[in-house]
Amino acid sequence: MTATLTPTLELAFDLIRRPSVTPVDEGCQELMMRRLAACGFEVEHMRIEEVENFWAKRSGGASETNGPVLCFAGHTDVVPTGPLDAWQYQPFDVRIDEDGMLCGRGAADMKGSLASMVIAVERFVADHPNHKGAIAFLITSDEEGPAQHGTKAVVERLRERNERLDWCIVGEPSSTTLLGDVVKNGRRGSLGCTLTVYGKQGHVAYPHLAKNPIHLAAPALAELAAEHWDHGNDYFPPTSFQVSNLNAGTGATNVIPGELKAVFNFRFSTESTVEELQQRVTTILDKHGLDYHLEWALSGLPFLTQPGELLDAVAASIKSVTGRATTPSTSGGTSDGRFIATLGTQVVELGPVNATIHQINERVLASDLDLLTEVYYQTMVKLLA
Amino acid sequence: MTATLTPTLELAFDLIRRPSVTPVDEGCQELMMRRLAACGFEVEHMRIEEVENFWAKRSGGASETNGPVLCFAGHTDVVPTGPLDAWQYQPFDVRIDEDGMLCGRGAADMKGSLASMVIAVERFVADHPNHKGAIAFLITSDEEGPAQHGTKAVVERLRERNERLDWCIVGEPSSTTLLGDVVKNGRRGSLGCTLTVYGKQGHVAYPHLAKNPIHLAAPALAELAAEHWDHGNDYFPPTSFQVSNLNAGTGATNVIPGELKAVFNFRFSTESTVEELQQRVTTILDKHGLDYHLEWALSGLPFLTQPGELLDAVAASIKSVTGRATTPSTSGGTSDGRFIATLGTQVVELGPVNATIHQINERVLASDLDLLTEVYYQTMVKLLA
Ligand SMILES: [Zn+2]
Ligand SMILES: [Zn+2]
Repeated sequence: MTATLTPTLELAFDLIRRPSVTPVDEGCQELMMRRLAACGFEVEHMRIEEVENFWAKRSGGASETNGPVLCFAGHTDVVPTGPLDAWQYQPFDVRIDEDGMLCGRGAADMKGSLASMVIAVERFVADHPNHKGAIAFLITSDEEGPAQHGTKAVVERLRERNERLDWCIVGEPSSTTLLGDVVKNGRRGSLGCTLTVYGKQGHVAYPHLAKNPIHLAAPALAELAAEHWDHGNDYFPPTSFQVSNLNAGTGATNVIPGELKAVFNFRFSTESTVEELQQRVTTILDKHGLDYHLEWALSGLPFLTQPGELLDAVAASIKSVTGRATTPSTSGGTSDGRFIATLGTQVVELGPVNATIHQINERVLASDLDLLTEVYYQTMVKLLA
Repeated sequence: MTATLTPTLELAFDLIRRPSVTPVDEGCQELMMRRLAACGFEVEHMRIEEVENFWAKRSGGASETNGPVLCFAGHTDVVPTGPLDAWQYQPFDVRIDEDGMLCGRGAADMKGSLASMVIAVERFVADHPNHKGAIAFLITSDEEGPAQHGTKAVVERLRERNERLDWCIVGEPSSTTLLGDVVKNGRRGSLGCTLTVYGKQGHVAYPHLAKNPIHLAAPALAELAAEHWDHGNDYFPPTSFQVSNLNAGTGATNVIPGELKAVFNFRFSTESTVEELQQRVTTILDKHGLDYHLEWALSGLPFLTQPGELLDAVAASIKSVTGRATTPSTSGGTSDGRFIATLGTQVVELGPVNATIHQINERVLASDLDLLTEVYYQTMVKLLA
């Protein structure tokens, strides 16, 4: 089958057969950097702590240093395989099966997209060597892990040197059923918190000598769970609140515990700010007279790319390549797009169908990756040709 | 000091120096059985599984086989010592300190009482060899442990052979400040339960695809915690409900758990039945539309000894020996009295001050044990002389 592979699939094979389980890169970036350097990119390897990252940029001409910059962003790391004997084919033994599916860990999330980006850029640069502005790549090997020394850290370096970044296409698998049916034009924010409610330990036979933090916290938790935080807006669903972990008790059945811990998380729209959510939680806890401590952890602010040059170019390219109208969406988890958006960049996530990501037997329709290459190519034509 | 010990304290020394940490007996019962046999008791050693127990009975005369039976009950096992270096004197190195306190593990709970019972009975039998009815002892070495093969199992044997048991004095340390200030004339029931609330696991970013059992359970737990179960009565405080353990969550902060577990306990008065409490919990859970499972565990029914022959005799004896009016109480945890009461027996708990039980440096005023011997003796005089 290898003899008949398209350039995109050939590169996808080369990337997927490298077992780059997060945060390991296994040479994926070296492969990408070599090809980008060969078509005129200035490539910067950025190893930060244990994490491999690179930044690459190609200007279309000497006079164009102030033109717009379109960046492709993504990650070479993949999530762990899970039990190997559950896989139909081994996760790094990449292949195209009889249904035309490219099978392997990372096929959908997101080595397929990386291959499409590189091939699209190679073609575009060959066709338009003196393109407007600049094309860039921001690639990390720690998106699936703690993500502290990946895109977030690279963005800080870019910010320090005032690197211009107008548009960014992140290769995250945004499509739900058919290639390009959905693109992500934003993501909700994520705000986590550990709540500790203090009571007073005692014996269940002497409740008047104790203060049961479970009894004290229950009505407050009920109110938090029932609260409507906002109504969302045209781009975002309403902010949601979920308690993920709740623990109290010594294990003994005759002891009233001294404290209760609840871990909760907001996925929040641009209709609520971090400060507002924190204030409202505090107000509810205070109203119930609790003695408590809150430990907040902000994972990411919401970002939104409103209709404009980038979203228009992406939507038009999807339409011309697939015949489909795309749906912009802000649903789902967080992505590295949240870090890039802090540079004032318009960010859109566009990649293949995400039905099997992070699962056993991850796969994607092989021909979709060739379509994706064409969509990326057309987008560059619209923005930089 | 040993030269000046009273008979009660001498026997208490002999018992306390044996390290009979539950369920080990270390020969304590052998010692008691020998002395009781010597003054006319028929003694039955009842080893049940790993647990040493004995039953002993002395009838006052051939014509008295149908007379009333007064039983002394108690346990030879003690709770673990905890860290030895925290003890002022080693826990089994029994002594009377300069303040006249008998120091050692079990001094208060309840080897002091056992010594007082034996000495009181020896004296009473010597003074009244042809006493009315019968005197009995029911002694176990598993009251502080699981308590399955101790008093509970002995009572079942007594029930099978229709053993008559009119009155029972349990030697549990009932006094709070001064000897005899409080006797226990009943105990609340204890009803435990593990509640599982079922939801549907999912990702916090997609709450519409999950059902969060924490959010579902919180209002129901709040209502259970706020419920007034009954008002108690002249003998019992109101029934209390306490959640001792509450757990939900996978540990991951982005996963909505699939279920929640809550362990709760009722300490209930004679104003509520087990069936009523179970029904009311079910009604509240159903009202909140929960999908749940309840696993009930009844530890003990409440028992109550109303004023009558036994309580009157005990109170009058305390008055005559100490000059104090005693206060009957049903507060505190459960005791083996709950098993004995199922035989239709009037049960009163009377023992020394409980301030240091189950603690480091357990101790009791040595002279209180001599008073206790006298109280037990006077009670026998009133009931059986
Ligand atoms: Zn990804
Ligand atoms: Zn005890």
